[in-house]
Amino acid sequence: MNPEISESPPMTAQIPADLAARILASDRRALARAITLVESGRAEHRAQATALLDELAGAGRQALRIGLSGTPGVGKSTFIEAFGMMLTGQGLKVAVLAVDPSSTRSGGSILGDKTRMERLSRDPNAFIRPSPSQAHLGGVARRTREAVSLCEAAGFDVVLIETVGVGQSETLVAEMVDLFVLLMAPAGGDELQGVKRGIMEMADLILVNKADGDLKPAAMRTVSDYAGALRLLRKRPQDPEGFPKALPVSAIEEAGLEKAWEEMRALAQWRRETGHFDRCRAEQARHWFEAEVREGLLARLREDPQIRAKMRELGDAVAEGRSAPSAAAAAMLGTLEN
Amino acid sequence: MNPEISESPPMTAQIPADLAARILASDRRALARAITLVESGRAEHRAQATALLDELAGAGRQALRIGLSGTPGVGKSTFIEAFGMMLTGQGLKVAVLAVDPSSTRSGGSILGDKTRMERLSRDPNAFIRPSPSQAHLGGVARRTREAVSLCEAAGFDVVLIETVGVGQSETLVAEMVDLFVLLMAPAGGDELQGVKRGIMEMADLILVNKADGDLKPAAMRTVSDYAGALRLLRKRPQDPEGFPKALPVSAIEEAGLEKAWEEMRALAQWRRETGHFDRCRAEQARHWFEAEVREGLLARLREDPQIRAKMRELGDAVAEGRSAPSAAAAAMLGTLEN
Repeated sequence: MNPEISESPPMTAQIPADLAARILASDRRALARAITLVESGRAEHRAQATALLDELAGAGRQALRIGLSGTPGVGKSTFIEAFGMMLTGQGLKVAVLAVDPSSTRSGGSILGDKTRMERLSRDPNAFIRPSPSQAHLGGVARRTREAVSLCEAAGFDVVLIETVGVGQSETLVAEMVDLFVLLMAPAGGDELQGVKRGIMEMADLILVNKADGDLKPAAMRTVSDYAGALRLLRKRPQDPEGFPKALPVSAIEEAGLEKAWEEMRALAQWRRETGHFDRCRAEQARHWFEAEVREGLLARLREDPQIRAKMRELGDAVAEGRSAPSAAAAAMLGTLEN
Repeated sequence: MNPEISESPPMTAQIPADLAARILASDRRALARAITLVESGRAEHRAQATALLDELAGAGRQALRIGLSGTPGVGKSTFIEAFGMMLTGQGLKVAVLAVDPSSTRSGGSILGDKTRMERLSRDPNAFIRPSPSQAHLGGVARRTREAVSLCEAAGFDVVLIETVGVGQSETLVAEMVDLFVLLMAPAGGDELQGVKRGIMEMADLILVNKADGDLKPAAMRTVSDYAGALRLLRKRPQDPEGFPKALPVSAIEEAGLEKAWEEMRALAQWRRETGHFDRCRAEQARHWFEAEVREGLLARLREDPQIRAKMRELGDAVAEGRSAPSAAAAAMLGTLEN
């Protein structure tokens, strides 16, 4: 619909010649710059990002992608710092990406602060990237998914994708990770129902944090509450016996972290052996491709001046109550058919 | 792209001749049937629903549309029942619609049960419609928005749209209501931060429920905590002094409900006088028209066999790792330009 788009096909976009090479050589500054490129809303940056990602796809590098969710107050930052330090202590390279679509009104991110993970952010084997502000959920999805690919190309072994809240952003993250971990706080049995059932069903592992000091008995009770609840959920065919699991951890005392990591590796290994791991990645890639096509079509709708004028005209009729939204939309779609 | 769509233009669809008339005559069974029509995924039903809504738009009837949100456990059902009974007691006709996109995996609705509001569901001046299961967020949005229009045409004075959870579904509901009410439970000051800032900013009124018995002191403290928090948020230009407000209510003791209703009416009245009310409705209508056009375009993408085949081919390349999602999407969009 808009010929301008095809005049600069993304595949031939000019990207800095050595950017791909530097990312493949694990250059952190190059990685950070490439993530800034995928976060950009400018058309030429988008074309460059597309070309860069396609070039890097050939390298075939894979990290273990872990989604981590938990409501505010469960100690997510402390956990990620402790867990990340344990992994780098084992010689692994760890990237942490945050997804925080936040409010569509405020736009601001309450997270995204490197100071939350001071030790980890200074670790040469760790890379922390906060969520960009002002992005809508769809934009955050693409940015995060592409940032994951960049981290993989840069040779990271584990990519942690942190998400906040309970809802759509979790679904989104679950669609781009290999494992999904839910971090919970110790709680009374009654509060169990406060966890949305959909989120529970996404979780491969529920970690009950703060299993230390005074809260330890409550944490252990919560673990067994969740373990009971998980048994009520249908075992997924791709999982070995016993999954999804609930385990206690203490981020502050750095306890239970090795055990948690062991379970994550065991589950990933099982899924690799059964073929589920690759199948799931293939499905995810296809899903994101389709999402990109949809988004591209809508962008054209926004960019074509004639289409925009007609949209405004019909939109006015709807705004003034002269037409119902669905009837005006049917009329608009009729004009788009030619 | 798909000529089949234009062969049966929605505007000339056959709708049962007396359905519109019966809705305008406040026939509840006709209303229920029309809502079932807008919930249907079948093309001929969609065409009928579109024609019906366009016909009813001419009647120009308006209800006060109130969005009501609150996490599980705050006593939302009890509140709606008590609040609804108070309104019908004043001779007003009240419709209650539920929005519950639930989990994309489980698909099931944990709400949507009329037995939650037994007295209200037997009240001849009340109409309760649970959320349909298995709908995606976009579908729920259209269904709910159109059900609201149908309730307005049927002469309801107040339409309550109940939503569950904290996140995208609230944003969606806020885009179709005149007022947004957040129902909260009494809580310690520390828990204040558990409320997502975006939701707080949407609320015109925060009602702290369970201001009765042992919980009353905690509820009053919570009211003043929220009142303090609301003062920190910028006053919106469309609101009179003092809004957004926090108030205590007790759904069980039916206390504070008149006061809450008084505040809602005062705010709506102010917005009507300042012109904000109509302006906001016009913007919302335009927004929903644009959403419909987008959704219609995507439907064509799914329905055209040639487009589907090309999508599959490129999707395979992405799934097998031969291409990055964004690059394959750019190629697909290139073929759609002709």
